[in-house]
Amino acid sequence: MADELRCDSVWYGADVVTMRDGQYNIIADGAIAVREGVIVWIGMRAESENIVARRRTDFAGGIITPGLIDCHTHLVFGGDRSQEFEQRLNGVSYAEIAAQGGGILATVRATREATVEQLVSSARWRIERLLAEGVTTLEIKSGYGLDEASEIRMLQAIRQLAQQLPADVLATCLAAHAVPPEFNHHPDGWIDVICQRLLPTIKAEQLADAVDAFCEHLAFSPAQVSRVFARAQQLGLPVKLHAGQLSALGGSALAARFNALSADHLEYASESDVQAMAQHGTVAVLLPGAFYLLRETQLPPVELFRQYKVPMALASDANPGTSPALSLRLMLNMACTLFRLTPEEALAGVTLNGARALGLEKTHGSLECGKVASFVHWPLTRPAELVYWLGGQLPCQVIWRGEAQ
Amino acid sequence: MADELRCDSVWYGADVVTMRDGQYNIIADGAIAVREGVIVWIGMRAESENIVARRRTDFAGGIITPGLIDCHTHLVFGGDRSQEFEQRLNGVSYAEIAAQGGGILATVRATREATVEQLVSSARWRIERLLAEGVTTLEIKSGYGLDEASEIRMLQAIRQLAQQLPADVLATCLAAHAVPPEFNHHPDGWIDVICQRLLPTIKAEQLADAVDAFCEHLAFSPAQVSRVFARAQQLGLPVKLHAGQLSALGGSALAARFNALSADHLEYASESDVQAMAQHGTVAVLLPGAFYLLRETQLPPVELFRQYKVPMALASDANPGTSPALSLRLMLNMACTLFRLTPEEALAGVTLNGARALGLEKTHGSLECGKVASFVHWPLTRPAELVYWLGGQLPCQVIWRGEAQ
Ligand SMILES: [Zn+2]
Ligand SMILES: [Zn+2]
Repeated sequence: MADELRCDSVWYGADVVTMRDGQYNIIADGAIAVREGVIVWIGMRAESENIVARRRTDFAGGIITPGLIDCHTHLVFGGDRSQEFEQRLNGVSYAEIAAQGGGILATVRATREATVEQLVSSARWRIERLLAEGVTTLEIKSGYGLDEASEIRMLQAIRQLAQQLPADVLATCLAAHAVPPEFNHHPDGWIDVICQRLLPTIKAEQLADAVDAFCEHLAFSPAQVSRVFARAQQLGLPVKLHAGQLSALGGSALAARFNALSADHLEYASESDVQAMAQHGTVAVLLPGAFYLLRETQLPPVELFRQYKVPMALASDANPGTSPALSLRLMLNMACTLFRLTPEEALAGVTLNGARALGLEKTHGSLECGKVASFVHWPLTRPAELVYWLGGQLPCQVIWRGEAQ
Repeated sequence: MADELRCDSVWYGADVVTMRDGQYNIIADGAIAVREGVIVWIGMRAESENIVARRRTDFAGGIITPGLIDCHTHLVFGGDRSQEFEQRLNGVSYAEIAAQGGGILATVRATREATVEQLVSSARWRIERLLAEGVTTLEIKSGYGLDEASEIRMLQAIRQLAQQLPADVLATCLAAHAVPPEFNHHPDGWIDVICQRLLPTIKAEQLADAVDAFCEHLAFSPAQVSRVFARAQQLGLPVKLHAGQLSALGGSALAARFNALSADHLEYASESDVQAMAQHGTVAVLLPGAFYLLRETQLPPVELFRQYKVPMALASDANPGTSPALSLRLMLNMACTLFRLTPEEALAGVTLNGARALGLEKTHGSLECGKVASFVHWPLTRPAELVYWLGGQLPCQVIWRGEAQ
């Protein structure tokens, strides 16, 4: 580096796991220079001599990774379902729990009763658990309101959380999550409300960055999902889909045809689904937490994703029913243990490929010049340790957009 | 309470999950009075008026549980095996890794090379991860030295950790963990060293609280284990056993016949094993972390333990090969998800039954008058939440022997 470079801060003295191109691509004894929250130089510490910075931080060892990205969560909800979780383990049947008003409808009821402020404060401590272990970008979905006003309140809560928390928070409208009780015998009526009223409002008020749906026998058919996606596309909102978790409906191919950012779950995705995803650049988001908690046995087709070069992202799917997960790092271990990803693939899943699943790959997900300066320092020797250590919270220091948290 | 009670501190304003008799036994809006690190009164806050205390802490909500007990760990070791973990996921075979000197022998080599101080400092951050989420009592085993001097150094490291950390730390001699390379063709020679030299030294220098062994085809036969146990019994050292993890050798019945504190793993324990354990008061220690990481399918006979009233404890089995676990709370979730324990059974497994597995049930494991004042305050509503939330570190305040940590 010949010329003098002026910047706000420089961080050095650790091995930088850049995740450039979705691979470790480690800079041994690296340095990162930051100006206005953006990386303006990255390279070997030995070559960083001409950098003039107001603040200099020597990590004195350890590794630096990009800030982690959790690209699929349902972290905003009313109540929790720990009581139902306990009842099930005590032998109470699903039918009895449903008769008591349990399951997703219990969450819908509690969410409808909550104010925006209550939704914000109950979500906040859960999100803080994720941030404490290195998450700097996350997506949160609506989908427990299931009426117009409550869906909007959920999205408003997500926007408020984005204001309050040291993280980049994206909002997704998942109004087509489940059939609202009011539309039990007429699910298309709810699709009408979504298409005619909810999506235009959300677009006008900029309440969501994307639109999601749940394509499953228990939720919505491919035809119903197509209606939602067509409307979203018309409004210029990107789409993504919960597809192939419990059965093969060809949902991921459908998502791909709408150029979806991602198709998520995918245990039952077929080879033609995978081909369509590859063709349209749709990311495969794997959710091992729900797989583990539901004791599923059908594995997502990881070998096909590799073969067709479909990027694999990983997320917590944090939700009160099937994955009350408070840790993205645990998902790395579960993806390797249960789905046999390599540690490098798993780390790419919560960095560069997580960014791709959110349409943020130009600015997030790897440590490169011009990208946001969100990164994490870990007192570890090699990145595989992030996957290897099972549970617990590893000590770390989080830097979000150039500022130590 | 009629008379005035003088004590050092009183803690109130939360629901106290006492775990008396291994059940929740909750005191709603309870209070705990502590003198010299011991509980001198426990009851409803409304009845605590006559208590005179130097310090009063109002938790203003939440729940209190006994300090958690991790009764089976291998937390002291040299090196780690994250590299080997990564190699395996990249398709390198066990045979190739063994040919490189990997597996348990890699840990033995690194442990033999480490000084007591190095063993202490590398174990310390791992143990601190456990303590941060509410562990106040833990057991640590030797077993990676596999020569006389190195086994003693491991036990010395454990005794030093007990001095340094805010927790009750017990040491177990697991010299009969694996056949040392030097005794490959003559495992009984190592059993001779253990019986004739190591155990007497350990007894004389009070370096261990119990003696453990690994009864498995790859390790030691029931006959070899019996020799170790007979010698331990002669020296007045209690025993426990790794039994039935990978095959049915009747190890747990053998352990019971020696009145073992516990038999651990137990996936392959038979009904007669369970009967023998019930008869001799041997605790069943379940280790779901290793089960999960090895993707085992043979479940421990939980229904038989219930039927014969064998207390079930749960532990992290924290070790560098098959369970690099840094979280005991995650083991609660895994025990319920994978082994179908109820949340109450799981919590009993890391409190009262964990204490039983260590022979500490008179002083530890539940919140009762006369027991040590080690407890944890959680900002939660019900104890099942400790099990329900998957991963992450729940906020908590730990009180160890009457002192806030
Ligand atoms: Zn989801
Ligand atoms: Zn063990």
